[in-house]
Amino acid sequence: MAYLFNTIGLIGKYGDPSVEPMITLIGDFLRRAGLRVLLDEATAELIPPRGLEVANRRTLGRLSELAIVVGGDGTLLAAARALVDFQVPIVGVNLGRLGFLADVSPDEIPRGLDEILRGRFREEERSLLHAEVRRGNAVVSQADALNDVVVHKRDVARMVELETFLDGRLLNTYRADGLIISTPTGSTAYALSGGGPLLHPLLEAVVLVPICPHTLTHRPIVVAADAEIEIVVAGHKATHAQVTCDGQISLALETGDRIVIRKKRRKLRLLHPNDHDYFELLRAKLRWGVSPEGTDSNR
Amino acid sequence: MAYLFNTIGLIGKYGDPSVEPMITLIGDFLRRAGLRVLLDEATAELIPPRGLEVANRRTLGRLSELAIVVGGDGTLLAAARALVDFQVPIVGVNLGRLGFLADVSPDEIPRGLDEILRGRFREEERSLLHAEVRRGNAVVSQADALNDVVVHKRDVARMVELETFLDGRLLNTYRADGLIISTPTGSTAYALSGGGPLLHPLLEAVVLVPICPHTLTHRPIVVAADAEIEIVVAGHKATHAQVTCDGQISLALETGDRIVIRKKRRKLRLLHPNDHDYFELLRAKLRWGVSPEGTDSNR
Amino acid sequence: MAYLFNTIGLIGKYGDPSVEPMITLIGDFLRRAGLRVLLDEATAELIPPRGLEVANRRTLGRLSELAIVVGGDGTLLAAARALVDFQVPIVGVNLGRLGFLADVSPDEIPRGLDEILRGRFREEERSLLHAEVRRGNAVVSQADALNDVVVHKRDVARMVELETFLDGRLLNTYRADGLIISTPTGSTAYALSGGGPLLHPLLEAVVLVPICPHTLTHRPIVVAADAEIEIVVAGHKATHAQVTCDGQISLALETGDRIVIRKKRRKLRLLHPNDHDYFELLRAKLRWGVSPEGTDSNR
Amino acid sequence: MAYLFNTIGLIGKYGDPSVEPMITLIGDFLRRAGLRVLLDEATAELIPPRGLEVANRRTLGRLSELAIVVGGDGTLLAAARALVDFQVPIVGVNLGRLGFLADVSPDEIPRGLDEILRGRFREEERSLLHAEVRRGNAVVSQADALNDVVVHKRDVARMVELETFLDGRLLNTYRADGLIISTPTGSTAYALSGGGPLLHPLLEAVVLVPICPHTLTHRPIVVAADAEIEIVVAGHKATHAQVTCDGQISLALETGDRIVIRKKRRKLRLLHPNDHDYFELLRAKLRWGVSPEGTDSNR
Repeated sequence: MAYLFNTIGLIGKYGDPSVEPMITLIGDFLRRAGLRVLLDEATAELIPPRGLEVANRRTLGRLSELAIVVGGDGTLLAAARALVDFQVPIVGVNLGRLGFLADVSPDEIPRGLDEILRGRFREEERSLLHAEVRRGNAVVSQADALNDVVVHKRDVARMVELETFLDGRLLNTYRADGLIISTPTGSTAYALSGGGPLLHPLLEAVVLVPICPHTLTHRPIVVAADAEIEIVVAGHKATHAQVTCDGQISLALETGDRIVIRKKRRKLRLLHPNDHDYFELLRAKLRWGVSPEGTDSNR
Repeated sequence: MAYLFNTIGLIGKYGDPSVEPMITLIGDFLRRAGLRVLLDEATAELIPPRGLEVANRRTLGRLSELAIVVGGDGTLLAAARALVDFQVPIVGVNLGRLGFLADVSPDEIPRGLDEILRGRFREEERSLLHAEVRRGNAVVSQADALNDVVVHKRDVARMVELETFLDGRLLNTYRADGLIISTPTGSTAYALSGGGPLLHPLLEAVVLVPICPHTLTHRPIVVAADAEIEIVVAGHKATHAQVTCDGQISLALETGDRIVIRKKRRKLRLLHPNDHDYFELLRAKLRWGVSPEGTDSNR
Repeated sequence: MAYLFNTIGLIGKYGDPSVEPMITLIGDFLRRAGLRVLLDEATAELIPPRGLEVANRRTLGRLSELAIVVGGDGTLLAAARALVDFQVPIVGVNLGRLGFLADVSPDEIPRGLDEILRGRFREEERSLLHAEVRRGNAVVSQADALNDVVVHKRDVARMVELETFLDGRLLNTYRADGLIISTPTGSTAYALSGGGPLLHPLLEAVVLVPICPHTLTHRPIVVAADAEIEIVVAGHKATHAQVTCDGQISLALETGDRIVIRKKRRKLRLLHPNDHDYFELLRAKLRWGVSPEGTDSNR
Repeated sequence: MAYLFNTIGLIGKYGDPSVEPMITLIGDFLRRAGLRVLLDEATAELIPPRGLEVANRRTLGRLSELAIVVGGDGTLLAAARALVDFQVPIVGVNLGRLGFLADVSPDEIPRGLDEILRGRFREEERSLLHAEVRRGNAVVSQADALNDVVVHKRDVARMVELETFLDGRLLNTYRADGLIISTPTGSTAYALSGGGPLLHPLLEAVVLVPICPHTLTHRPIVVAADAEIEIVVAGHKATHAQVTCDGQISLALETGDRIVIRKKRRKLRLLHPNDHDYFELLRAKLRWGVSPEGTDSNR
């Protein structure tokens, strides 16, 4: 048989029953193609599984040779963190709005998937970050992030003080609303809103972007991806800070906690259609192509 | 007769014969309405005047009760500077691309003009700046600007040093590629590219925006429109600097020259259609309304 | 007698006993000068009043002809909001670190105060904002702000959607971490960290600065101070947002609440020493004067 | 003998006779140490060579085992471009003002040099860029850059249109005052003034920073250093553009010219004192360490 993958995991946007038609369309297509389909447990709670085999995230990760994720970039972020340790390649199907990660559009289904199943795709490796919260000698919590790890003030606090070390050497003490540590993948997300630069997805780098820094001279800084970043939340204010990963996971902090961030050894295997062009995606998403409005007309 | 204006100046985009159909359409409409039409001399060189009375810019300014300007915002900038001293109100007709200033669209012609001629319009007063280059006690050159006065390095120079005074008190010495002094009207033009804020068009203020400043702490500063701004190009580098007004007029500089910028006493009378909404224009031109692309998808 | 003021309110930094020597120094000086001194109740709880008359904030406001505030700019913000309705002029004495508002330094005490008491000062009027939270037809909470009113996401929320109206017309819907509405006084504070421009303190304007906006085209916008700004927190997310005034007062929000912000009719009367120079202060505080480091050395 | 280097090139700041005492001090020290010293020809024209052997830049490059450059970062940039092809390691001695590149201070002379001569140093490899201007099939001009290659408008032009390709694929068409292509070394120089991020010096990356872009959505983008960047100056405006390398070398452009930029195969060998700490330098130069002024006081 011409298909490169025999067992396919299928994951829908969390908590959104509107994914049903697309899940059904893809499920039917895969079964007609004679492939084994594992439907994500959480998705199966939302929509009738129609005879598809249901698996929890762990089983899905262990058995699938390919995972198809239906939803937006947020859905893909969660799936990526869940599956990266199983090294299952992922393809993202969006629900009508082009994503940076979920870049197969509904109107390309099922043809686009057929192409990918036959091995006609571009595979990219995307780095993730691993964040640990350390208290004394213990690791009290940890999580992965495909986009970003953000240390930020909570609620009423007006700022946090973040002593930041790279490979054990002091980079700086940030006094700010927070600090974003972003992968290239995350550089089009929250880091961009915070004033960070774009990083080409394959660059082995991370960028540190302070959020509303008090000092006017702060600028985003791009460092090698294999640097170990350690952030100490200064003094008595630690309880006013928290850590979030991809904006989806929150880790609580106490006074004296240290957040240690490293590049994860395992990378996400992200599959794109063969005609994928990152710069084209960038121009479309950031509206670079759309020219002559903007600032130029009375310039 | 129901018309508010009897003598109408008609000015086309400089050097662009493609304005002919619109000029003809408007000219015919005005004559059928029984109004006297003065066609701008420079426009008449481009296209056959077809029986329209031709006038130089000065005569046009003296005699017209309303000027209709056909072209983009650049055309309107030039017309505004030429006509402001005659206090002729101006309405801008664009050539298909909505302008911040030229905001009547071709498909609204002639109906939109008819409305305006009958007094159904919104009149706005827009401030201009007057820039003088002073050498010793003499004023060696001067010009007006509706958008901005820019002092900038020339050619090979890597920067200029600009001692800047407000009402005789030192604001700062800028070491930069240049310095933009912009009206609210100009705040959507070059000043915006340089990182300046938007200023509501009716605000009595100007904004100083340094271009690529060496010092990281520089920020745009907004000051009252009636402040006198004086800029001294420091030392021996003056010959590497020049002044431009609206990007259309250049004033040369020599060592020791001072540039003095003041709000012009006379304001531009700019007419808009009755349904004009500045914020709507802003959202359309800056694509604020166009939502959900951008940075949010993998956020 | 040569003194312009007979009854002086004296307010120390909240909760900080280290103000004692300066409070004592000033109190003794004023009493020796034969003036009546009212010590702020909260300050009197911290330090022995040593025979000074103690008054609550309300009495102090009603009776004082001048208030001397000892502390940083934060202390002055709180005092300004408390005293503005009584129209008591305020002078700020810092504790060693020059403030934008508290600009009399400890080493100028008591000489600097003596000058001011004798009428040798510069008086500035600073605008405040008044924010109301409206629920249906009721005003459920309200507060003043000398620096800024900030609507922002709380805690875990990743963003808020803020429909913003000026004088009843839609400006824009911000999708962002928050929105800062800042006076000129506040333009050197949080708004500056968020990327806003500087506004000259006497400009009758406010600036709207989005915090980490999702859309890349957003820019700070400066509007006339007398515009009424209304912000509607969109939909079901209202409980994830809150309002803060000067970063010191928090107003809770519920779904459907509207925040209405207007310039306060009464202004703060802020007294400065006679040699006060705002631009000099700006250069010192933003380190504009400190030249030749920065970006220029390998430029 | 304990010295690692026997022949030392000595280069002073171009056209500045004030380097004489330091050149003399270093020259005397090296000769007393029994080393052969080659004084740069251009430096020898400025100051009496006092018995030092004079060599042109080429000979100096061929024979020297180490080059000592006395001046600011600008001097070191020029020396680096001249010597990189000879792979001579360089150490920079500044004239009192700490540089990003010239980081040995005068008061460390001669002790600091003695350390370096004895092999106690940190060696860093810094990437350079090579820019070629291509006309048809010919390369009409070319130059190296340690900081940056900048394509920018000349003189009166208000903007340039720059079609930019990475490895043959369209990145974007910039409509801007110019475009900076910067190495990590250059990221603290002009690119920083233009709003670019900091890049750690050892990162194998370059950053593209548009200068005053017309479109508000443009952001700096960081790409891998081995990408080939090609810039086509659009249409008839090519004569209004030019290319500069490190702000020191200008290459003229004609219509249709293409600028091709690649990482240079050979890297600069830059020597630092053993206690060199890049982050400390960054904090000192950008004044990150200098805390509590800035925006925080009335925040």
